Amino acid sequence: MKGYLHRFRLEGMSLERIATFSDGVFAIIVTLLVLELRVPHLNDPHNARELAEALAGLLPKFLSWVASFLYVCVFWIHHHYILKIARAADRGLVWLNNLFLLCHSFIPFPTALLGDYSMNPLAVSFFGVVLLINALAIIALHAYVVRNLLGEGEDRAAEWAHSRRSCQAPVLFAFGAAMAWILPIVSLVSYLLIPLLFILPRDRTTQNDRQRVKS
Amino acid sequence: MKGYLHRFRLEGMSLERIATFSDGVFAIIVTLLVLELRVPHLNDPHNARELAEALAGLLPKFLSWVASFLYVCVFWIHHHYILKIARAADRGLVWLNNLFLLCHSFIPFPTALLGDYSMNPLAVSFFGVVLLINALAIIALHAYVVRNLLGEGEDRAAEWAHSRRSCQAPVLFAFGAAMAWILPIVSLVSYLLIPLLFILPRDRTTQNDRQRVKS
Amino acid sequence: MKGYLHRFRLEGMSLERIATFSDGVFAIIVTLLVLELRVPHLNDPHNARELAEALAGLLPKFLSWVASFLYVCVFWIHHHYILKIARAADRGLVWLNNLFLLCHSFIPFPTALLGDYSMNPLAVSFFGVVLLINALAIIALHAYVVRNLLGEGEDRAAEWAHSRRSCQAPVLFAFGAAMAWILPIVSLVSYLLIPLLFILPRDRTTQNDRQRVKS
Amino acid sequence: MKGYLHRFRLEGMSLERIATFSDGVFAIIVTLLVLELRVPHLNDPHNARELAEALAGLLPKFLSWVASFLYVCVFWIHHHYILKIARAADRGLVWLNNLFLLCHSFIPFPTALLGDYSMNPLAVSFFGVVLLINALAIIALHAYVVRNLLGEGEDRAAEWAHSRRSCQAPVLFAFGAAMAWILPIVSLVSYLLIPLLFILPRDRTTQNDRQRVKS
Repeated sequence: MKGYLHRFRLEGMSLERIATFSDGVFAIIVTLLVLELRVPHLNDPHNARELAEALAGLLPKFLSWVASFLYVCVFWIHHHYILKIARAADRGLVWLNNLFLLCHSFIPFPTALLGDYSMNPLAVSFFGVVLLINALAIIALHAYVVRNLLGEGEDRAAEWAHSRRSCQAPVLFAFGAAMAWILPIVSLVSYLLIPLLFILPRDRTTQNDRQRVKS
Repeated sequence: MKGYLHRFRLEGMSLERIATFSDGVFAIIVTLLVLELRVPHLNDPHNARELAEALAGLLPKFLSWVASFLYVCVFWIHHHYILKIARAADRGLVWLNNLFLLCHSFIPFPTALLGDYSMNPLAVSFFGVVLLINALAIIALHAYVVRNLLGEGEDRAAEWAHSRRSCQAPVLFAFGAAMAWILPIVSLVSYLLIPLLFILPRDRTTQNDRQRVKS
Repeated sequence: MKGYLHRFRLEGMSLERIATFSDGVFAIIVTLLVLELRVPHLNDPHNARELAEALAGLLPKFLSWVASFLYVCVFWIHHHYILKIARAADRGLVWLNNLFLLCHSFIPFPTALLGDYSMNPLAVSFFGVVLLINALAIIALHAYVVRNLLGEGEDRAAEWAHSRRSCQAPVLFAFGAAMAWILPIVSLVSYLLIPLLFILPRDRTTQNDRQRVKS
Repeated sequence: MKGYLHRFRLEGMSLERIATFSDGVFAIIVTLLVLELRVPHLNDPHNARELAEALAGLLPKFLSWVASFLYVCVFWIHHHYILKIARAADRGLVWLNNLFLLCHSFIPFPTALLGDYSMNPLAVSFFGVVLLINALAIIALHAYVVRNLLGEGEDRAAEWAHSRRSCQAPVLFAFGAAMAWILPIVSLVSYLLIPLLFILPRDRTTQNDRQRVKS
């Protein structure tokens, strides 16, 4: 057994193929999410008003789909960044990545649960717990790369600081998961607002970015 | 939080990986569309006539599948073009792309709705509205690239003109969405005809194209 | 409108991204096929004999899955070959490819139909007709590339001969589609045997292949 | 026919596109697995306790999902390794790869079966048999590459030894499949433990790996 396990450490793994496999998983998760939006049954197929009411009833599913879509995009960006600062892949990176993808491909389930039972405190809390686990999984992957596989030109101290700061994300998810048992609506609003923190630009740094791209 | 948001602007993003992720999403959307065509139930499994009638009843679903497939291809070609004229990716491009993919991965839902309720004005109009939003999302992405990230050899004035002209597509979709409330059949026919505008070649330019490829 | 249609001819299209998109579609079709195999319902969940009988009842679905899987692989290999002999992509190639992918992504539907109604002549014939259309679509793509976009080192006469010979495949599918109305079992057996023609090696040429790889 | 079969041997196949197609299939299998986790029906949608009980009832499905996910990852790593030591692709590699992907894309079905009927000896045994067939398929692919297509710098004797040692995996799966008829719980535990053999690092070699990456 030893010999079999032995191989498949470094030699066979290229960062490119890990990225291709992961991108495939991200793309499929993000696209499967919409399958939870099912066509409603109408008593009168020609009735626009009945269809409008049925569509309005899908609003919780629609919002949980949008939130999950944005979270997957945020994780995808972080994942992309981690693979870029790595100089090579080893067994640890591959399996931490696989475990992250395992946690990530689970997301359609709590999303569907939240869409169906958005007023059930367990469904609301469960969504936050799954995001929390995903955040911890990607932080572990990030820390592993910074510790063991950081590329030549990268600044280790800055990366550690960066990695420590990303621990604010699981704190937000833990807050959402906990509030579900007190004021579920606060959790739901926070789930919709958290992605905005990652999307909205901050004036100064964005300007810097543009200058760097232009120059 | 600031530090966390800070990073993941330019440094981690490569146009190649954005294209891989987007291509994955396009490929999955286009393939999921056919899942709406469900095997009909037959009272007599051996009866070819009964199956023929059941298949004929699937015609509206079949047509909405074909139309959506062609629209996704048209968007894919436009998306491909936009990424090609960009010289780099920044935070704005990544998130405008993600928001476009969010709108795009929604397409299977209005397609299924149209297939089931092709005589319901809201279903017919909704399909046009979703295409309209998708057209606006990709025009925003295009305009952002032309304004901020245009590659070296590209002609900015020509790109602006090109971008302005693409605003004719949302006008067509708005027409389809509006006609659904007056004469739904006109909307349905226009949904099937609009893709042809993008597929059928125009004699002169196609000849030019061939000459350029040959030379 | 003219300007909008105008662009997106040659400039934006790279063969690599067309291959990535197409490979995504092939991979998804091939994997979705298994979703037709649904877990059977058992009255006694612990009863191995009842499960064995239920699994035996899935045999027609299993065989139609295997056949479709192999056909998609054969088409994938042909598609791969066509993109390789092309020297560039133009509007015609992109849209012939899209139309081929449209026909190809339809395959899960006749596969499911055949799995459910393998004794219904229309279902058996329909499967052959869809394969026939797919074969014609890929032959059109092949002929277009040979005529307009053949790469530098390629032998045009040999490619024409090759393209003409591939017309034997649609003849086989037409035979299967026609026999469904006379002796369905002959169609079913031919659907399972045709892929073997493409898989089993022919002694002499395979040896040549090996020598060329080795040298 | 001969001419048609003739071509598509070596010329059209690149290892890169085989890897892209295979990665797509792996990514989709791994992500489809979670679709078996369906949202439970609740009599009282607001009742957290009822939802907790329903989620607990999904535990067998959850565990079979995790096990299958990890197996697909192990196979993906092995597959990655095989393509890396190959110097080129020929007809044999392409079709052995396709047959492996055929066996692999079947995995969602026995996984769903095990999730639903985890106390049915046939379902438990069937899961092991499918993994056994997959292990044999990838060992055949590995052996074919070592025999016919081994890259320049690779050590043939070491690869043969490696390939022989990987035959321990099917033995483990055969053990699991057989134990299902005597003590199903032993099979179930072994299915969950086998992936750990491939994931957990072995101290000495892992240190060597790290040193090689660092130097």
